[in-house]
Amino acid sequence: MIRIFVAAGLALVLSGLGTRLLIGWLTSHRVGQPIHEDVPEGHTTKAGTPTMGGIAIVFAAVASYVLSTLYRGIATQRGLIVVGAIAAAGFVGFLDDFIKVRNERNLGLNKRAKMIGLLTVAIGFAVLIVTQTQQHTTLSFTRHDSIGWELGKVGWVIWAVFLIAGFSNGANLTDGLDGLAAGAGIFAFSAFVIVGFWAFKHPGLYDLRAGEQGVGLDLAVIAAAMVGALAGFLWYNAAPARIFMGDTGSLAIGTGLACLALTTNTALLLPIIGALFVAETMSVILQVASFRLFGGRRIFRMAPIHHHFELCGWPETRVIVRFWMMSAMCTAAGVGIFYRDFLVITGTLA
Amino acid sequence: MIRIFVAAGLALVLSGLGTRLLIGWLTSHRVGQPIHEDVPEGHTTKAGTPTMGGIAIVFAAVASYVLSTLYRGIATQRGLIVVGAIAAAGFVGFLDDFIKVRNERNLGLNKRAKMIGLLTVAIGFAVLIVTQTQQHTTLSFTRHDSIGWELGKVGWVIWAVFLIAGFSNGANLTDGLDGLAAGAGIFAFSAFVIVGFWAFKHPGLYDLRAGEQGVGLDLAVIAAAMVGALAGFLWYNAAPARIFMGDTGSLAIGTGLACLALTTNTALLLPIIGALFVAETMSVILQVASFRLFGGRRIFRMAPIHHHFELCGWPETRVIVRFWMMSAMCTAAGVGIFYRDFLVITGTLA
Repeated sequence: MIRIFVAAGLALVLSGLGTRLLIGWLTSHRVGQPIHEDVPEGHTTKAGTPTMGGIAIVFAAVASYVLSTLYRGIATQRGLIVVGAIAAAGFVGFLDDFIKVRNERNLGLNKRAKMIGLLTVAIGFAVLIVTQTQQHTTLSFTRHDSIGWELGKVGWVIWAVFLIAGFSNGANLTDGLDGLAAGAGIFAFSAFVIVGFWAFKHPGLYDLRAGEQGVGLDLAVIAAAMVGALAGFLWYNAAPARIFMGDTGSLAIGTGLACLALTTNTALLLPIIGALFVAETMSVILQVASFRLFGGRRIFRMAPIHHHFELCGWPETRVIVRFWMMSAMCTAAGVGIFYRDFLVITGTLA
Repeated sequence: MIRIFVAAGLALVLSGLGTRLLIGWLTSHRVGQPIHEDVPEGHTTKAGTPTMGGIAIVFAAVASYVLSTLYRGIATQRGLIVVGAIAAAGFVGFLDDFIKVRNERNLGLNKRAKMIGLLTVAIGFAVLIVTQTQQHTTLSFTRHDSIGWELGKVGWVIWAVFLIAGFSNGANLTDGLDGLAAGAGIFAFSAFVIVGFWAFKHPGLYDLRAGEQGVGLDLAVIAAAMVGALAGFLWYNAAPARIFMGDTGSLAIGTGLACLALTTNTALLLPIIGALFVAETMSVILQVASFRLFGGRRIFRMAPIHHHFELCGWPETRVIVRFWMMSAMCTAAGVGIFYRDFLVITGTLA
């Protein structure tokens, strides 16, 4: 258990220091975030704020995972594959951020290139997991056998790619207000600290079928490292933000959440734990669908939905705090469902 | 377990609705918070914001405790005494707020009257607990026998009064930035949801020596009701605040935390779980001591410490988010210590 706290604490410090250095370096090199033309007016004052803070998040999370594992514990195959996927997704995001900044427009990699990069990461992760580890390939909710629908290796890969692509996109869309994605990410990753640790403590129930010990703990350590890394970053990203995470950060968040949900056999719990990311994605899909199907009619004043509330007159910080609260409640509900299932299967529900 | 979620959910809704009604009523009756003259300049714009939002918090917490208990579960003596103390402390705060608003100055009850009111509540609580219930009277850290220092009934009453007075004052001082005390309170009460529930699940270890069943659960329900009530209030109290909690809210928070720590036998864990409240109090004590002892020299630019950072140039929202983060980390550390102790005594520490 100490390894979880070490990983989180180390990631916090590394990410905090890293973010601070990044702010200095990016500012002195005048590397600022160009702001989309189609966001509420208040946001134009944000132009010039350094971006790519996700570099510090990914670096801190990976480094503290490695260091805490060297200090105490053994890396597992699944753990390494998840960390690799987070780093790779961060790299795809970094390329996008880098091109955006160089072109001084908020466009970046063209959509197709970004999608191909992300799909490569997702397929690579899923194929490695099903071929190199003994991952269950059922459709999972709170455990590998909670639903008992066997997807098969190919089916699981497709499902995994869908989940990774969906949540990466969701985190990307959520990252539109100061600290929103970082805060929501902290809550969601915290849930996987608990889920992973609980699976580790009850190996008979949460059969991670490892052929290796301690997978649950290893995954909990990764989640804790992400919590710490996001917290260190949020220190500077809190409103008014001194730096943004960019796609580097948001793709790493979405990919990390999806990979952890898949490897801890809680894939269908993720839409509850990370409900904010789902809601943000749905708002865009609904907006586009309504616009196309009903001749230009919009459901929201603007999508993703956090901009809708801004245009309704909520000050930015109020939207952020309220969205954080909803995000925390959904995460709490997800953990509650997970724990209730544990009580039911162990026959200890009061 | 469902009772915990029912209590939290109900409190959330009641508090949200209650706060909204209060904002309307107080605004239409022009009942606003007079702002102290000795706070940073930015705060003068806050004059006129309605206060006494704590009424909604206390009402929602008490009502949802009662309703969720009627719906399912049995009230315990200790639970009722804790709820009574929260309501009574809220009432003392309300008198203070009421006089403040009527005088249109930020003074309220004179300090002595307020202190007498609060001491009455604290002594009443402590005496009822030691005479009417089978509360352990040891100095407790993570369990009743974690330290094993028997205080005796009188000693325990004195200790309880000190803790209640200290934390009520701490919460009162913390309540100086939009949402700060509510957010920190949410984290701290969440810890007691876990502590109470865990004590309930392992009655042999966490001997609440009740002579009645389910004390742990009952206390967890109270903590959950406070979490929900604070969340519903924070919905409107988030920066920029539309309402303040006033002493009604802050005294209820501090008293509630101290009473829950005392009854769950985790009194010395409270300074970790609620470290922010301790730090805010210490900053004032140090400031005053330094000023008196060293001929007018100040340690902080202003106390309580959140104003110090504002004067250092941190925007208010940045102070709030950073303080929330530190508060959440301390709470997590407190819960981690509690759980680690559980692993140690059950011999299951990995």
